[in-house]
Amino acid sequence: MHDAPGPAFSYTPIGTIHSQFTDIAGMPIQPSGARGVRGTVELRSDLFGGLADLDGFSRIILIYALHQCTGSSLTVIPFLDPLPRGIFATRSPARPNAIGLSVVRLVGVDGCVLTIEDVDILDGTPLLDIKPYVPAFDAYPGERYGWLEHVAHNAQHTRSDDRFR
Amino acid sequence: MHDAPGPAFSYTPIGTIHSQFTDIAGMPIQPSGARGVRGTVELRSDLFGGLADLDGFSRIILIYALHQCTGSSLTVIPFLDPLPRGIFATRSPARPNAIGLSVVRLVGVDGCVLTIEDVDILDGTPLLDIKPYVPAFDAYPGERYGWLEHVAHNAQHTRSDDRFR
Repeated sequence: MHDAPGPAFSYTPIGTIHSQFTDIAGMPIQPSGARGVRGTVELRSDLFGGLADLDGFSRIILIYALHQCTGSSLTVIPFLDPLPRGIFATRSPARPNAIGLSVVRLVGVDGCVLTIEDVDILDGTPLLDIKPYVPAFDAYPGERYGWLEHVAHNAQHTRSDDRFR
Repeated sequence: MHDAPGPAFSYTPIGTIHSQFTDIAGMPIQPSGARGVRGTVELRSDLFGGLADLDGFSRIILIYALHQCTGSSLTVIPFLDPLPRGIFATRSPARPNAIGLSVVRLVGVDGCVLTIEDVDILDGTPLLDIKPYVPAFDAYPGERYGWLEHVAHNAQHTRSDDRFR
C-alpha cells in the first residue's frame, strides 16, 4: 500500500452552467428533485466543434466544479438522513475533491448553448466535461444502494440548506 | 455570451486504480466490455474514514484522470464507429479535460482497498472521486443515445487501440 498522492491534475472549465439557483441553500439536491427545472450550459466558443452529434442524445452527464463548497469532511450528515455517513457513500459536495456529477435532460442545442432540464446545479457553476449518457454503459436500475434505499425517494422534495457552504 | 474560462481547478488524487490493463491499447472500451474483469481501488489511508457505509452499494461511480491520454481533439473517430464525431458526443479520452467516468461493480471493501468488477480502466490510473451509484439518481434506461444506438452493443467485444495515446 502506498500513500503518495501523486501530482495534482488541473482542469480549465469548458463552460458555465446557468440555472435559477443563486444560493447554495434551498436547492434541489438531485436531478430527481428538479424535474422540469430548466437551465443552460454555455460552452466556450473555441470548443463549439465538440458539440457535433450531441443532439442525438436525450440525456447528458455533466461533470463540474462544486466551486462554492469550501472545506471537506470524511463524514457528513447528508440532507436525506440524520445519521453521519462516509463521504464516499454520499453525494454531498463536501468531498476531498469537490467534483459534481448530474445526469440532466438535453432539450436542445443552439450554437454553444445547451438547454437542459432537471437541473440541480448552482448558477455560475464551472463546467469541466460533458459526456453523452448511454443506457448500455450507465443505466443499472436494479442495484443495491445502501442507506439511500429507504430515503432516496425523499430527494424529490428535500431542499438543501447551507451546511456545506 | 462570455468566453472567459475562469480559473483552473486542481485536484489531488484520492487513490489509485489497479487493473490487469497495463497498455492503453487492447483494453475494453467500456465496463460493458469488461464484465467480470476484476481490479482494485487503493484509497489513500488518510481518507479511510470516508469509506464508511459504502459497502451497502453494489455499484459505484469512479471519476479519474485519463493520465496517459495526451492531447485532445474536438472531433474524433471513436472506437465504435468509422465516422468522426464531436468529442462531447463520445466517451473518447481525447477530451478538453481528460476526465474519465466508469460505473463499476463494488465486490468488497477491506480497509482502504476496494475490490471492483467490470473494470475498463488502465492500471495505475489516478482516482479523483468515488460516488455511490443510486438508481433513482443515475439510471435512465429509456433514453435516446444518438449515433451509439446502432453500435453500443459492440462495446462488449471491441478493444481499444493506441489512437488516443
